[in-house]
Amino acid sequence: MRISFCCTDTKAEPWLEGLRAALPQAVIEPWSPGAPLADYAVVWMPPQQFLTEQTRLKGIFNIGAGVDALMKLDWPSGAQVVRIDDGGMAVQMAEFVCHAVIRHFRELDGYEVDINNGKWSFRRPRLRADFPVGIMGLGVLGERVAQAVSHFDFPVLGWSRSPKSIDGVQCFSGQAQFNEFLAATRILVCLLPLTPDTRGIMNLDALSRLKPGGYVINVARGAHLVEGDLLALIDSGHLSGAALDVFSTEPLPPAHPFWTHPAITVTPHTSARTLREESIAQIAGKIQALQRGEPIAGVVDRNRGY
Amino acid sequence: MRISFCCTDTKAEPWLEGLRAALPQAVIEPWSPGAPLADYAVVWMPPQQFLTEQTRLKGIFNIGAGVDALMKLDWPSGAQVVRIDDGGMAVQMAEFVCHAVIRHFRELDGYEVDINNGKWSFRRPRLRADFPVGIMGLGVLGERVAQAVSHFDFPVLGWSRSPKSIDGVQCFSGQAQFNEFLAATRILVCLLPLTPDTRGIMNLDALSRLKPGGYVINVARGAHLVEGDLLALIDSGHLSGAALDVFSTEPLPPAHPFWTHPAITVTPHTSARTLREESIAQIAGKIQALQRGEPIAGVVDRNRGY
Repeated sequence: MRISFCCTDTKAEPWLEGLRAALPQAVIEPWSPGAPLADYAVVWMPPQQFLTEQTRLKGIFNIGAGVDALMKLDWPSGAQVVRIDDGGMAVQMAEFVCHAVIRHFRELDGYEVDINNGKWSFRRPRLRADFPVGIMGLGVLGERVAQAVSHFDFPVLGWSRSPKSIDGVQCFSGQAQFNEFLAATRILVCLLPLTPDTRGIMNLDALSRLKPGGYVINVARGAHLVEGDLLALIDSGHLSGAALDVFSTEPLPPAHPFWTHPAITVTPHTSARTLREESIAQIAGKIQALQRGEPIAGVVDRNRGY
Repeated sequence: MRISFCCTDTKAEPWLEGLRAALPQAVIEPWSPGAPLADYAVVWMPPQQFLTEQTRLKGIFNIGAGVDALMKLDWPSGAQVVRIDDGGMAVQMAEFVCHAVIRHFRELDGYEVDINNGKWSFRRPRLRADFPVGIMGLGVLGERVAQAVSHFDFPVLGWSRSPKSIDGVQCFSGQAQFNEFLAATRILVCLLPLTPDTRGIMNLDALSRLKPGGYVINVARGAHLVEGDLLALIDSGHLSGAALDVFSTEPLPPAHPFWTHPAITVTPHTSARTLREESIAQIAGKIQALQRGEPIAGVVDRNRGY
């Protein structure tokens, strides 16, 4: 078995060492043009040339949850594209989103400003019943986030393309229930895959439907959000702010208004990172399952877009 | 059904309005001497005359967790005395502590500083296995906090006066296991009651035993911490910082070094408040349960004293 490694912006050596230790029977090499045909590939933003040359691939493992970069390319016809289900990302997403929800609900940013001004302040407690959290995207990450938020007794809603059922989460699905979901949501969390259907989904119309004082947490892709629409609704007072980890252009351009907006918390695309050890274990396990002819989770549906 | 409200030092109107909204079928009135006999009472430090006159009471709901004032009085023989279990405080403690743990572990303060300086930064992810969280005090609040932290897959340890057993928590107890608990802890959370035994428990000796890079979260009482010892250990580099919500003097005096220390996050004793709405909901729910003949939690045992 031959495995080709073709990852942009990734330090190759630790991945190669880890994969070789996990799959000692395989030949695992970094790709270069004209390399021998491989059975499997481990990729991150590969060039089209890689996918054009590697015609024998049975499985292409994307070392991230978002396969939007791969969707723009042509794949070998016999290949399944497989995303990382979790790779340690679900718990990171859960903690990042819970931190943002709690920080907003408990006004911890406001307390911090007061303390920095030498002020020992009192703020009237708010009711968590007034802060329903609506999560868009109920895959492995979204479900874990929904459960984590519900442990803090917030009302939790979820919205996904196809119907889902999650304990303690009021689930909505499809375009038909989207507005109903938004109208019942005050803190909106985006964990959707980026597809033609979801690009710009957080626009003026959708964000206007959130409960007054609405708050946006985007940990998916910058292109889910129409950034100017968010700013307009914060400035109009309908929305109270946002915690944004992803942006239409990354790094965030120096002149972008988000850098200094008092109601917007910016983090540099750090909500969840692929953890190498966990991802290697997951990819190795799936390759072994495919070799045994067993089904695996995380196979991308080209038509669906994720 | 008639409910009598007899609370010293409490603004009656919002309680009466809330109780009437929650229990529309009941007659709910503030008590005065000679008032009609009620079925249930909502009390805070009532006079003995109230309890002597109201011989028909089935349930007496104390609007606080501490029933020490009621223990000094005689109750009607047919009445159960019921305390607020947590009045919404446990979930607040859980969210406040989880926020502080996540903020420290994920270096979100550091990212914020970077962003404020216009810097899009990268920090190497840290392993949660390297950040065991040790919780001192395993009562209603401490247990809830321990469970909340463990949902984020941190190793969780607990220490209490008497032995406890909590799923997913490595429990230590008593003076004999205190140093062992400290040596295994990196993030130390204090949720102890303040007693002669626990005053100054976080001192130079105890804090020196924490793992290098240790971090202190105090949400109990300021007097649990020897503030100068904490500062000395941060300045020596053994501890990395602290999130403090309580102080030996409150409000924190203007010249106190904590106000501006870069490694110390100060909040103005806001980690958990008794919430009127949640208490009303809890009392109303328990009255409805008693009416249906169902058992309720929080019934005071006169002999045990709480």
